[in-house]
Amino acid sequence: MNDGTPLGMHSSVVITLPPWVTSAVDWQRPYEHDDEKMRLAVALARLNVERDTGGPFGAAVFERDTGRLVGVGVNSVVRLNCSSLHAEVVALMLAEQERHSFTLAAPGLPRHELFTSCEPCAMCLGATLWSGVKRLVCAATRDDAMRLGFDEGPVFPASYTYLEHAGIEVVREVCRAEARAVLELYHDRSGPIYNA
Amino acid sequence: MNDGTPLGMHSSVVITLPPWVTSAVDWQRPYEHDDEKMRLAVALARLNVERDTGGPFGAAVFERDTGRLVGVGVNSVVRLNCSSLHAEVVALMLAEQERHSFTLAAPGLPRHELFTSCEPCAMCLGATLWSGVKRLVCAATRDDAMRLGFDEGPVFPASYTYLEHAGIEVVREVCRAEARAVLELYHDRSGPIYNA
Repeated sequence: MNDGTPLGMHSSVVITLPPWVTSAVDWQRPYEHDDEKMRLAVALARLNVERDTGGPFGAAVFERDTGRLVGVGVNSVVRLNCSSLHAEVVALMLAEQERHSFTLAAPGLPRHELFTSCEPCAMCLGATLWSGVKRLVCAATRDDAMRLGFDEGPVFPASYTYLEHAGIEVVREVCRAEARAVLELYHDRSGPIYNA
Repeated sequence: MNDGTPLGMHSSVVITLPPWVTSAVDWQRPYEHDDEKMRLAVALARLNVERDTGGPFGAAVFERDTGRLVGVGVNSVVRLNCSSLHAEVVALMLAEQERHSFTLAAPGLPRHELFTSCEPCAMCLGATLWSGVKRLVCAATRDDAMRLGFDEGPVFPASYTYLEHAGIEVVREVCRAEARAVLELYHDRSGPIYNA
């Protein structure tokens, strides 16, 4: 792989959403209930598979009280050559850009919540903690993802206890069947399992 | 914070290193021993504090067998308004860009190793796993960071066992004193504790 050119030429990375996201997301309307919010995360996961832009995972960050959408993410690991760009990380990054803040819990900001089409891996669980969201809502389970061959990393019951002690409410299995169907679609299309 | 402008304007994030990194890093020479590699990671951490560009953490990715430097990172959470941009994540992202691969363990690539000036938080431990590095070398300990008020998140002995089972060698306390001195410098300068 090394062709003699100097290493270290990369001092930046540009993280973008796939172009289809613009027309797939309604940024103006409030999202009212957990089901409605999760349907957006799952729709992003499904489109990411159907458009061949990445793994079967989507996420979205909302203002908790108003239901306003603040950021969305889709798994972008393969598309952007970046192993850390899981859907949750992308959604949190873009939400923080939107808020011009490294924490969504900054003074003066409304409370935020993260919806993800699948329970977070070890990395995303940590990222959730650092983001300042006050609520984490998940659709498919860790087992659903692992059944496809995705590794979820060292996540333990105590990991969730840690989040809860940090003041983050965790809700699971909202729209699980719909999210699992997207995992199965990806499997049927023989999508690459990047965290094998 | 919401001034009536439409949300969702942010569909990209640009991740850059601070400008001083270019002149602080020698990309051409091989780095031979663990101490020498770690001194680079710790020097990056120190410069990040001295130049006021972020938290007291630095990281670097090397080819394990040749000692060639592939990517560097410094904590960029506050500078780039992005809670996930810990030094390890930045270094791994840039190394993957350099390799044009979402995994540093891709067929045909040499083995890679991550040096970090402090034991990884929960997020970075997960990111290490997904990156494909085969070796993780740490300087300061989790306790050293926590003594300053940094939270490290849900990392347990079993988390490291998980990494080792995945074929990642873990080495600790290489240049710990030097790395701890950087943490203390940051503390003395009253640097912000973003993961409080």
